[in-house]
Amino acid sequence: MRHTRREIALAGLLRCAEPPVAPAVVAFVDALGAEEAWAAIAGGRAPGEVASVVQPRVGGLGRVELEFQAARDVAIAAENGAVLVGPGDPDWPDELFAPLEWVRPYEQCPHAAPPLALYRRGRGWATGDRGGLAVVGSRAATPYGVRVAAELGGDAARLGRTVVSGAAYGIDAAAHRGALHAVDDEMGDGGGSGERRSEGGPAAGCVATVAVLACGIDRAYPAAHRALIDAIARGGAVISEYPPGSVPARHRFLVRNRLIAALAEATVVVEAGRRSGSLNTATTAANLGRQVFAVPGPVSSAMSVGCHDLIREGRAGLVTGWPDLVGMIEPLAPAAPAHRPGDRPTDGLDLVTSRVHDAIPARGAVSVDTLAGEAALPVPDVMGALAVLQTFGLAQRRDGLWCRA
Amino acid sequence: MRHTRREIALAGLLRCAEPPVAPAVVAFVDALGAEEAWAAIAGGRAPGEVASVVQPRVGGLGRVELEFQAARDVAIAAENGAVLVGPGDPDWPDELFAPLEWVRPYEQCPHAAPPLALYRRGRGWATGDRGGLAVVGSRAATPYGVRVAAELGGDAARLGRTVVSGAAYGIDAAAHRGALHAVDDEMGDGGGSGERRSEGGPAAGCVATVAVLACGIDRAYPAAHRALIDAIARGGAVISEYPPGSVPARHRFLVRNRLIAALAEATVVVEAGRRSGSLNTATTAANLGRQVFAVPGPVSSAMSVGCHDLIREGRAGLVTGWPDLVGMIEPLAPAAPAHRPGDRPTDGLDLVTSRVHDAIPARGAVSVDTLAGEAALPVPDVMGALAVLQTFGLAQRRDGLWCRA
Repeated sequence: MRHTRREIALAGLLRCAEPPVAPAVVAFVDALGAEEAWAAIAGGRAPGEVASVVQPRVGGLGRVELEFQAARDVAIAAENGAVLVGPGDPDWPDELFAPLEWVRPYEQCPHAAPPLALYRRGRGWATGDRGGLAVVGSRAATPYGVRVAAELGGDAARLGRTVVSGAAYGIDAAAHRGALHAVDDEMGDGGGSGERRSEGGPAAGCVATVAVLACGIDRAYPAAHRALIDAIARGGAVISEYPPGSVPARHRFLVRNRLIAALAEATVVVEAGRRSGSLNTATTAANLGRQVFAVPGPVSSAMSVGCHDLIREGRAGLVTGWPDLVGMIEPLAPAAPAHRPGDRPTDGLDLVTSRVHDAIPARGAVSVDTLAGEAALPVPDVMGALAVLQTFGLAQRRDGLWCRA
Repeated sequence: MRHTRREIALAGLLRCAEPPVAPAVVAFVDALGAEEAWAAIAGGRAPGEVASVVQPRVGGLGRVELEFQAARDVAIAAENGAVLVGPGDPDWPDELFAPLEWVRPYEQCPHAAPPLALYRRGRGWATGDRGGLAVVGSRAATPYGVRVAAELGGDAARLGRTVVSGAAYGIDAAAHRGALHAVDDEMGDGGGSGERRSEGGPAAGCVATVAVLACGIDRAYPAAHRALIDAIARGGAVISEYPPGSVPARHRFLVRNRLIAALAEATVVVEAGRRSGSLNTATTAANLGRQVFAVPGPVSSAMSVGCHDLIREGRAGLVTGWPDLVGMIEPLAPAAPAHRPGDRPTDGLDLVTSRVHDAIPARGAVSVDTLAGEAALPVPDVMGALAVLQTFGLAQRRDGLWCRA
């Protein structure tokens, strides 16, 4: 077999459930590691709560078929210049993804969930430990918005800050292009460029821009942006948590947005109509504890309404360009649940998980069915919650029953 | 004599010192009333602290000359369709001017000071008890700013809110014009207008717009705005605290701005360069406890830099037009020094006045010279402070000496 066991495992995990995956699966993979978790799932040996999540995709398929699917995904990715990376890989952005483990990024999101792995074309994702700068906005951008996004992207990249966006029409594309052009300029700039190139060019110290796709890494969406996406892969990285061949279904854009927000230290909305999807990215970023900024525009422009709403409501700081941002972006706080002194360890949990925690008796151990009855929750929800509680050291399994840890 | 004693007194007082006048003079006029205060000043019988303030303008002139000057001012005003109004007149905006009694509007302002009186062409100043809406901004406005200011002025006037501004080029003129056109439209609007007119037209319920001049009421500044200023006088009011013939000296614009801010419940900056005088109006409005808003614009526009600064720094709320404002303008708090329960009565005083208050012994009475020595302040400052303390009931005169009240 020409692929590593780890690659197969990561590809298999990415195919076994639609992101964002349920906490039980995240906790299961965290606990066992990708290869063992995948072996258990493919071998039909996953615990009930995990099995129920992966059932729609995995059920009825034998281990051989699942391994074959995964191997084909790895092969298609390789044909498209992409590799698989996951937790534990040296440059996996653990710190940046950490809040996704405990924060539900937006209301429509069923639960918090970091990606189990990512397909990646190109190099790295962001500058060292710092996140990038997410530059997002309307597809139907105005010439004004396109100009501002391109300048912002260019200024950020020129100063070593990775520009993260979604490769869409309008603002996204302008931001990516601005970043790419800025780095091209730097590369062509006098005698220093050869030296930089010999060090690996911008990739060594600076990934100009990262595009997060809502479809398979083998696809270009929108199709007209194939050349742009290829250029982003050369000058930075293109990433996706969807298996090759996945179509950019509507809901995937919202799910994808959490990765754009998470990979960035701050998110800037350049132009947004009142119902723009980029407002969802802004909300997600805020929920992840990241700074959100918006660019004002003419009050007569429908494409600035969303930005003005964000600023007026105090949900975004006003920025007019990179010079503003430099002074306002605060370094990321260390990634950890927001526990303050005096907080109980369960304060960071979502409602369902809290209820399950409350249902576990202070002494003795009980069955999942008993907990489901106590908490008045369906058994699969209880199982998912228990996996989370186990991960946080708040519950443990003993002889098939559950007790407080 | 064809003028009333009160008119002569108000005109005389407005000529005797450059606004903003020292607290001692305000307190003196408050205490005695305009006519007695004027009689004392013109007769050379003003107390020392007041006399020293009015000396540069009044010194060396006899009562007859001063009365003649004042009568001439009243006559010139009348020729220009203006009357004199002052504290005690039924529609004097006591409540709106009240914060000027204790708040120093901006750093360059030597002291807090309401106007002693005002020359006024036209009718009223604002809608009932509510203040107007100040719409201010750059003289070098862009077409964008002019359009926004005209729409804002029009929408505000159409909904019965008086638009207050300074009759300058650019934003000021656009706001006035928008308000005037809106009321013209209403007047010409079907059968109802005749009835409204018979009730006194917009003047009865709604003064469309008020211009506050930084020169004499007989002058038009800028000269090109003579027709506009006449139209404002017909559709609202033009006011000035400067004697007829006064030139619009540079410092008078800053001093005038405090009246624009004071007459308005909220101030909106539509366009402002980084050093625009309208930022001074915004600061003044904030210092008077009034709400401040700013209109965003293209980040590429130098004329929006000041607005973006105000919003970014949290010194102004973002507004995109009247619909935003309707929801955001809070009714004026009752005009009173911001004394909270537990505050000492002296908490609202400026530093000099506080020091003089502290220097008055708890028992017994002392001379002004003693107080000056105790407080380490020049005698005129002590006299001014004593007048303020007397007004607030914190000090009283007894046999030529001062004691706590």
